[in-house]
Amino acid sequence: MSYKIITISRQFGSGGRTVGKELADQLGLPCYDQELISMMAEESGFSEEHVRELGDTPFRNRLFSTRAERALNSSYLQSALWNAQEKVILELAEQGPCVIVGRCADRILKDRDDVLRVFIHADEEFRAHRIVEVYGELEGADPYDRMLEKDKLREGYYERYTRTQWGDARNFHLTLNSGELGLDFCVKLLEGLYKTE
Amino acid sequence: MSYKIITISRQFGSGGRTVGKELADQLGLPCYDQELISMMAEESGFSEEHVRELGDTPFRNRLFSTRAERALNSSYLQSALWNAQEKVILELAEQGPCVIVGRCADRILKDRDDVLRVFIHADEEFRAHRIVEVYGELEGADPYDRMLEKDKLREGYYERYTRTQWGDARNFHLTLNSGELGLDFCVKLLEGLYKTE
Repeated sequence: MSYKIITISRQFGSGGRTVGKELADQLGLPCYDQELISMMAEESGFSEEHVRELGDTPFRNRLFSTRAERALNSSYLQSALWNAQEKVILELAEQGPCVIVGRCADRILKDRDDVLRVFIHADEEFRAHRIVEVYGELEGADPYDRMLEKDKLREGYYERYTRTQWGDARNFHLTLNSGELGLDFCVKLLEGLYKTE
Repeated sequence: MSYKIITISRQFGSGGRTVGKELADQLGLPCYDQELISMMAEESGFSEEHVRELGDTPFRNRLFSTRAERALNSSYLQSALWNAQEKVILELAEQGPCVIVGRCADRILKDRDDVLRVFIHADEEFRAHRIVEVYGELEGADPYDRMLEKDKLREGYYERYTRTQWGDARNFHLTLNSGELGLDFCVKLLEGLYKTE
C-alpha cells in the first residue's frame, strides 16, 4: 500500500466531492473536480459549457437540432471528449500526488498500481436531503427525481466507457456509505489509509 | 452508528471468514460461520451434509436420482432450507451482538438498523494463491477453476434469494479489497468502526 493518487467515484448527493476536497486539504494535495472541465475544454477545443453538457450525458446533446444530425455527430463528439478526458487525467497522474473526483478516473488509471480507488454512495433519503441542503430548493423539481436522473446518466456514462458495472464493489479498493458512516469519518479513514505506507 | 451485529459477505478465497473470526475474537463476540450449518440442520431436519450440499448450490442436488424427481423436489427443499436459514439468523440476531459470515445474513437482517454490513473481496490472483495456502493443493484442480465455480454458485444463490446484485457496493456500508488492504488492516478498521458509538 503506497498510494500517490486517490480517485473518488461517487453517487450524486452522497457528498463524495466534499470528501475528496476535504481529504485533499488534509493531505496537502491538489483536488481535481470541476477543474477537469476547463482542462478538458482546453484539450478538446470545446467550450466549457459544451464539455459540461456532453460530459455525462452520453445519449443526447443540444449542439445539433435534428435527430439525424445528433445521431451522426454525437458519437464523434463523445469520442473526442473522452479522448481529451483520458489525456488530461493521465497527464495529471504523471504530474504527482492528487485526488481526482469522478470522470471515470478509476478506470482511466487502472494500469497504475499507486492509485487508491474509492467509491462513495449513500441511501436515497440521505442524498435527497443533502441535494436540497447543498444545491438549494429545486424550482418545481423533486430532489428524488433529480437524483434518479443523475444516477441513470452517470451509470450509463460509466458503463459505456469503462465496460464495467457502475457501483460494483469489485472495481474499488474501498467503498463507503457516507450517509451511514458520516463524511468526517470517510475523510479520516482515507487520510489514515493514504498515510499508511 | 451504533452496531450490535456485523455481517460479512465475502468472495471465496478473499479471507473474509478469517477477518470475521479475528474481528469477533478482538471484540469478544461470537462468530457464526460453519456453526450455521449445524443450526440449520437442526432447524430443518436435514443432515449437515445435505444442508452443506443444498446450501449454496441452488440449481442442483443429489438427493434424487432422476431429472424429474430433482425438478419436482429441489425447489421445495431449497425453500425449506432457506426458511430454516432465515429463522436461525433472525434468532441469533435477537440473542445479542455477534459476527455472522455469509449465508445472506446482510439481506436477512436488512430491516434492523444495528447491523454493519460488510463485503470483502480481492483480486483473482490473491484469492487463487490464498485458496492453495488455506485449503492445500487441490487434487488435479486448478485453483482458478475452483474459485470461478464458487463465485458463480455464491452469486447465483445470493441473487436468487435476495433479488439484489451480488457485489453491488450499494448493498453494504463498507466494502474492502482484502488483497490490497491486507487482512489485518480490515480487522483493525472494522474493530475501530464497531467501537465508535
